[in-house]
Amino acid sequence: MDELRPRPANSYALTPVGFLDRAAIVYGDCPSIIYNNISYTWSQTHRRCLQLASSLSSIGLNKGHVVSILAPNIPAMYELHFAVPMAGAILNTLNTRLDARTISLLLCHAESELLFVDPMCVSLVNEAFSLLPSSAKPPLLVLIADDDEVLPQQPSPTIHFYDTYEGLLEKGDPAFNWTRPKNDFDPIVLNYTSGTTSSPKGVVHCHRGLFIVTLDSLVDWSFPKQPVFLWTLPMFHSNGWSYPWGMAAVGGTNICLRKFDAPTIYGLIKKHGVTHMCGAPVVLNMLSNSLTNMEPLKNPVHIITAGAPPPATILSRTESLGFVVGHGYGLTETGVMHPDGYLEIKDRSKDVIISGGENLSSVEVESVLYTFPDINEAAVVARPDEFWGETPCAFVSLKEACCRIPTEKEIIEHCRGRLPHYMVPKTVVVKEKLPKTSTGKIQKAVLRDMAKAMGSSRASRM
Amino acid sequence: MDELRPRPANSYALTPVGFLDRAAIVYGDCPSIIYNNISYTWSQTHRRCLQLASSLSSIGLNKGHVVSILAPNIPAMYELHFAVPMAGAILNTLNTRLDARTISLLLCHAESELLFVDPMCVSLVNEAFSLLPSSAKPPLLVLIADDDEVLPQQPSPTIHFYDTYEGLLEKGDPAFNWTRPKNDFDPIVLNYTSGTTSSPKGVVHCHRGLFIVTLDSLVDWSFPKQPVFLWTLPMFHSNGWSYPWGMAAVGGTNICLRKFDAPTIYGLIKKHGVTHMCGAPVVLNMLSNSLTNMEPLKNPVHIITAGAPPPATILSRTESLGFVVGHGYGLTETGVMHPDGYLEIKDRSKDVIISGGENLSSVEVESVLYTFPDINEAAVVARPDEFWGETPCAFVSLKEACCRIPTEKEIIEHCRGRLPHYMVPKTVVVKEKLPKTSTGKIQKAVLRDMAKAMGSSRASRM
Repeated sequence: MDELRPRPANSYALTPVGFLDRAAIVYGDCPSIIYNNISYTWSQTHRRCLQLASSLSSIGLNKGHVVSILAPNIPAMYELHFAVPMAGAILNTLNTRLDARTISLLLCHAESELLFVDPMCVSLVNEAFSLLPSSAKPPLLVLIADDDEVLPQQPSPTIHFYDTYEGLLEKGDPAFNWTRPKNDFDPIVLNYTSGTTSSPKGVVHCHRGLFIVTLDSLVDWSFPKQPVFLWTLPMFHSNGWSYPWGMAAVGGTNICLRKFDAPTIYGLIKKHGVTHMCGAPVVLNMLSNSLTNMEPLKNPVHIITAGAPPPATILSRTESLGFVVGHGYGLTETGVMHPDGYLEIKDRSKDVIISGGENLSSVEVESVLYTFPDINEAAVVARPDEFWGETPCAFVSLKEACCRIPTEKEIIEHCRGRLPHYMVPKTVVVKEKLPKTSTGKIQKAVLRDMAKAMGSSRASRM
Repeated sequence: MDELRPRPANSYALTPVGFLDRAAIVYGDCPSIIYNNISYTWSQTHRRCLQLASSLSSIGLNKGHVVSILAPNIPAMYELHFAVPMAGAILNTLNTRLDARTISLLLCHAESELLFVDPMCVSLVNEAFSLLPSSAKPPLLVLIADDDEVLPQQPSPTIHFYDTYEGLLEKGDPAFNWTRPKNDFDPIVLNYTSGTTSSPKGVVHCHRGLFIVTLDSLVDWSFPKQPVFLWTLPMFHSNGWSYPWGMAAVGGTNICLRKFDAPTIYGLIKKHGVTHMCGAPVVLNMLSNSLTNMEPLKNPVHIITAGAPPPATILSRTESLGFVVGHGYGLTETGVMHPDGYLEIKDRSKDVIISGGENLSSVEVESVLYTFPDINEAAVVARPDEFWGETPCAFVSLKEACCRIPTEKEIIEHCRGRLPHYMVPKTVVVKEKLPKTSTGKIQKAVLRDMAKAMGSSRASRM
C-alpha cells in the first residue's frame, strides 16, 4: 500500500480557508455579509479576500508573520479571517476592550508585523504605541476607514498609517493564487486568553485544528444550509467560535454589527430573518429583560451561549420568547452529569468558595439569587473570614423595571429558604452595574478584590 | 513555532471510528440499531464492536490485513464498519449480487484473510471457493448466524466455517484498547468499483479521507442530532455513503433490513418514525409507483438519491408524497449548470449516443419517456445503424397498474412531440423488467448488447 501514501495528487493540507473557494462557486450570487448599507455576495467576498491576501503578500507578509486586528464585528474583521491565512500569515485578533498597556504587551509578544485598526480604536493604539519598549519594532498600521457610521471624535493621532484597508485591498490582485498551508499543522491564528487568572497566554491554532472545529461546530449545532447569522459574539473572541469559516462552509449570511443592545438585536432579527446567533449569558439576559420586545419571535432563533453558566431562570425566560438555546462549555468549567443525561456546570475551580472546609459552588448560589424577582445580575465570590476562612459574598444589580431597592436582609432571607445554611451569602452588595471582562463575563477577580477590601465578614455574620 | 509540531499530547490521527467512543458516552442509552426484534443501545454497540475487534486481533488479524464481508444491511454489517478498523485491519465489503466468479476474483485480489458470510450467501461462497486458483490461500470463514428471520434452504456446503459471528464476538474483551491508526493515511477500507466499464477496480480509502467525508456528508445534508436512518442504501455500496460512521457522530438510530419493497419501507417509516434514508432512483420509483401508500407521509422523510439521474417526473411524484429529495452525483457523471444555479446531470460519456454525428444524451430521451403515463422505467441505448452510425433504442417496463400494453408507435409519437427528430427513439422494446446492476442501476451494457444483437435499425427507420 506504499504507493497510496499522501502526495499532491491525492491530498492537500486541511484548512478552513478553503471553504471560501467553494462558497464562491456554490453560493456565488447569494449574500455573504450585510452591514448597515453594505451588502456583499460570496463571489465578492472571495474576490475581496484574494485581493487583500495578494496585497499583504506583496508587502512581504507571508509565512509565519503575525497580522493583528483591533476592531469590532465589521466586514473587515470577517474578511481578515480568510485574507490573512490566504497570504500564508497568522491572524491575531485583539480584544477592543483591553487597556493600552495590555495591547502594547500583546503586540510585542506576538511580534506583530501589521495592525489593522478600526477608527474607534485609534486613540487606544496611539496610547499603546507610546508604551512600546524602544527596542520593539512597531507594526505597520492600516486604518479601516470604510465605515459609513458616524464615529466619535478621535484625538489627533501621532501615529502614522501606512494605508487604509480599502486602499490596500484595491491594490491587490483578485486572481491571486493563495498560499495553501504546506502542512496541516501550520499555524493559522494566534489568540490570547483573556487573562482572568494571570497575564494573557498565547494560544496558537493550526489549519487542521480549525478545519475540524469548524465542521464539528456545524454538525453539533445541526446547521442548515444558508442560515442568517447575527454576529453578537465578538469575532475577536476565540475567532467567533469558528463560525467565520463555518458560514462560508454552509453559505450563510453574516449580519455584521459594530455594537448592540436589545432593540438593535430585535430589529435585525426582524429585518433580516436571523436564524442563528451566539453570545455569553449576558446577551440572553439582555434579550429576556428587555422592555422593547415582549411579543414572541415569529420564527425560532437558535442561540448558543457559553463563557459562563447561564442561570436557569434566564434560560427559561429566553426560551419563552421564542429563542432555542444551546449551551457550550469550556475545559476550565467542570464537573456534573445527571442520570437523565443533563449536564450541569458547577464552577471553575478558582471560583469555588471554601467556607469552614466545605467547598461551595458560587454558581449554585447565583442560580438562587437569579430567582429573586428584582435581581438582574448576580455574582458570588469569597470574602475573607477569620473564623470560616471564607464566606459567600453576593454582588447584585437590579432590573431596569425595578422600582424599589430590596434590602440585604430580604435577599438573604430569599436564599435561606432555598440553600443550605453554609451556602447563604453572608454579605449582599447592590451595585448599579457589575464589572465585566471584555468578552462580557462578570469579572469575579475585581469583585473578589472588593470583597477582600471589606475585611473579615466575622463581625457582620448572622 | 517548532515546539507546536504534532506530538501525542496535541494530536492524533483522524479516524471516523472514534465517533463510536463518543456515541457510547453521549448517547449511551439511546438506540443505535433496530433490526426485526433486535435492538441495541450505543453503549451496547460500542461494547460489541470492541469485543469483535479484540477477537479479530487475537486471531492475528490486524494492521494491513483485509477482512471481507458478504451480507445485506444486517447489524453485523454495521458493526464491522467499526470492529474491523478497530482491530487495525482493512474492511472489504462485497456486493451480495455479484456472481461466484467475480467473488473469487475479488477475494484473491484483495488477499482477504477472513470472510464474514451471511447465511443467504453460503452457496455463493461455496461456488466462489471452488473457483479459487489452487495457489490461493482461501480466507477463514465466519458464519453470521444470529438472524431470526426464516432463511431459504441452502445446499449443504462443502466449505468449513471457523466460527460464528456471535461466537467470535463473545470470545472478545469489551475492555480492548482498540488500535488507533498511527497515521491519517493508514487504509481503512478496500472497495471495488461495480465494473460497469470493465473489470472491478480496487479503491482504498484512508482514515483521514473517510473522517472528512463523514463530517462533510452530515454538514451537507444538515443532519439533526439523533435522526432515524433507514438502511435502504446497501452498506456494501461505497460504505453506505459514509453514514455508518455518520450515524455514530450524531447518535442516530440505524434501522437495518435484509431486503425491502415499498410496503416494507412505508411500514418501517411509520413504525420507527424514520427521518432520513438514501437510495438509487429505482428506490424513489418504487416508492412513488407503489399502490400501498397513496396518502402523504405524516412527517417529512429526507431522502438522498444518487447513482443515476432521477427523471423529473419521479422526483416530483416522490416529493408530492412527503419525501424531501436531495440529489448527489459522482465524478463520472457530468457536470450542465443553469444560470439559476440548478445543476442538470446530462450523461456518462459512455452512455452518449452518436447519431449522424450528433451527440445525443440518453438521459434526455429517457426523461421524455418517463412522462408517458404507463411507463415505469426507461433506458435508452445506441443501436447500430448502417446509415446514421447509431440510433436511439428505448427499453421500457410498464407500471403494475397499467391495463393495456401501449404500442411502439404510440410511444414514438409521444416522443416526437417533445424531442428533436434525431433524438426520438427509432426502436422501442417493452420488457417485463429491465436488467439492473447489483447496486440497482439499470444495466445499460446488457441493453446495449441486446440492441447490438438486433442488427442495424436501418430497415425499420421511419
